[in-house]
Amino acid sequence: MEDMARTIDIDAYAEGVLAGHRPTLARAITLVESRRSDHAELAQRLLVRLLPHSGKAHRVGVTGVPGVGKSTFVDALGSMLTADGHRVAVLAVDPSSSRSGGSILGDKTRMSRLAVDPNAFVRPSPTAGTLGGVARATRETMVLMEAAGFDVVLVETVGVGQSEVAVAAMVDCFLFLTLARTGDQLQGIKKGVLELVDVVAVNKADGPHETDARRAARELARALHLLRPVSPSWTPPVLTCSGLEGAGLDAVWERVRAHRAALEEAGELAERRNRQQVDWMWAQVRDRLLGRLRTDPGVRSLAPGLEEAVRAGRVTATLAAEELLAVFWG
Amino acid sequence: MEDMARTIDIDAYAEGVLAGHRPTLARAITLVESRRSDHAELAQRLLVRLLPHSGKAHRVGVTGVPGVGKSTFVDALGSMLTADGHRVAVLAVDPSSSRSGGSILGDKTRMSRLAVDPNAFVRPSPTAGTLGGVARATRETMVLMEAAGFDVVLVETVGVGQSEVAVAAMVDCFLFLTLARTGDQLQGIKKGVLELVDVVAVNKADGPHETDARRAARELARALHLLRPVSPSWTPPVLTCSGLEGAGLDAVWERVRAHRAALEEAGELAERRNRQQVDWMWAQVRDRLLGRLRTDPGVRSLAPGLEEAVRAGRVTATLAAEELLAVFWG
Repeated sequence: MEDMARTIDIDAYAEGVLAGHRPTLARAITLVESRRSDHAELAQRLLVRLLPHSGKAHRVGVTGVPGVGKSTFVDALGSMLTADGHRVAVLAVDPSSSRSGGSILGDKTRMSRLAVDPNAFVRPSPTAGTLGGVARATRETMVLMEAAGFDVVLVETVGVGQSEVAVAAMVDCFLFLTLARTGDQLQGIKKGVLELVDVVAVNKADGPHETDARRAARELARALHLLRPVSPSWTPPVLTCSGLEGAGLDAVWERVRAHRAALEEAGELAERRNRQQVDWMWAQVRDRLLGRLRTDPGVRSLAPGLEEAVRAGRVTATLAAEELLAVFWG
Repeated sequence: MEDMARTIDIDAYAEGVLAGHRPTLARAITLVESRRSDHAELAQRLLVRLLPHSGKAHRVGVTGVPGVGKSTFVDALGSMLTADGHRVAVLAVDPSSSRSGGSILGDKTRMSRLAVDPNAFVRPSPTAGTLGGVARATRETMVLMEAAGFDVVLVETVGVGQSEVAVAAMVDCFLFLTLARTGDQLQGIKKGVLELVDVVAVNKADGPHETDARRAARELARALHLLRPVSPSWTPPVLTCSGLEGAGLDAVWERVRAHRAALEEAGELAERRNRQQVDWMWAQVRDRLLGRLRTDPGVRSLAPGLEEAVRAGRVTATLAAEELLAVFWG
């Protein structure tokens, strides 16, 4: 990578990506993921060039706890779609991958079919950085994928921290995979995630688990109906499927398509995407501003003592906040 | 108010509050609510004096959509508590009150019994400012109330914007009031609120509505059980009650007390309160920093054009964010 900036030809990159040349696409993604400032500048030039060619894919997020069978599901769904003539890109947002060595997609062999499918492109999560950084790279990789002609982008997330929120903010449709559990308990419903989902699928509805999965789906549908604010344009359906056996995937995809059609009919798709972009601009402004605050030497040296004083009731939170801001502004 | 700062004697204020002298308490609250910088400084001096005398009340938040009967409920619950020997303060967080002229508590006559109860103190929401400002004043008023010997603080919120989040972050127990609706639909479940609640009560369970309320409570309990992450120390109960008839209020309060006992037993109460204070310090730092960003003249003149460019795909969100930060840092 040392000499990469010197030798990068943005025109050639742009042409290669637009032509769907896979090695160039891979290099362009590496450029977008790089955290070197000279790379960052080049990456932004490339992205501005490609933006007019982006936006044509159906962007679908997939989430669910570890063990729910996301990789198998994405592998099977993606293969179904490429067999149907689609070109499918699979990306991931996993801010934990730098520590864990990649809990999702780090090992492409977990998507054994898509990994060797000429009409698919599987890219692991960037393995370094904060959620904000990882999400930025994934969003910008999506631009490259769309410019390269992929018409379906599946963005997988393992659901660490706020990563579902980040993924929901970059896709058209957010698909939540869950499992049936013994009795009445559903697995893996994380705080806030139900408010983001557009389609729910109870996975591993195969063999002896099918009845449980059906019951879980009915209960979850009832609960969603009860708890979600009513939307005029869409009510999230709850289905069952089996990534392993490939059962029900066509029905899941049919609902994902129906969701998009409903958004388009209501004129909400373009608006949703535009809002996502503007929100993301502001999110980046906020993230960087608060990042500066967190890493400010004065703030770092003062904060622990002030936290302790606030905890002990020796100072009000308001006064402590004022002190921190005073040292930050210098 | 013009000469207030000149004539304010913080020692006298502190003594008056500690003695439970109602006119002084009212003046101290007005000082805390004031947005004049000289008042703010005096208020912080007063609060630092009183902090060691605070923290002894049971702090309970009450939320629910307009029409759910919050004022009647709080009036009845508070009266039950004062009859039982408690001293009850009623505060509010309603950032809309400056516009609406006070949609809750603005008119004390909506709490006709508590308003004239010598063992209660009803204070309307501050009527000016952002949610952050209103929440700050309410939190700091809570310190005054506790120093004045009130052992129950009820904080009502109308649930505009993020006000439930703000109230949940300042209380020991968050009580959610809802209504039964025809059939299977519950009213007023707002995004994210279920994750904050500790106790749920279906209100207006009186006369012909009682059966519906009971059924709604059962359904909601099932849904909560299904959807909430399991906590080892507490499962939010769902009750029915009637603020109007006073029915079921003792049972609701019994669950509020049981919740506190469970937190104490698990050693979580002190930790929750300490964390609330430290979180609040950081929230104030963030709010003020982002406030400066929003009001920065350079940012304000640049932002609309950049938003439009991002929307139209002429510039990446990342580049636009960099431009905004560059003009902000100057």
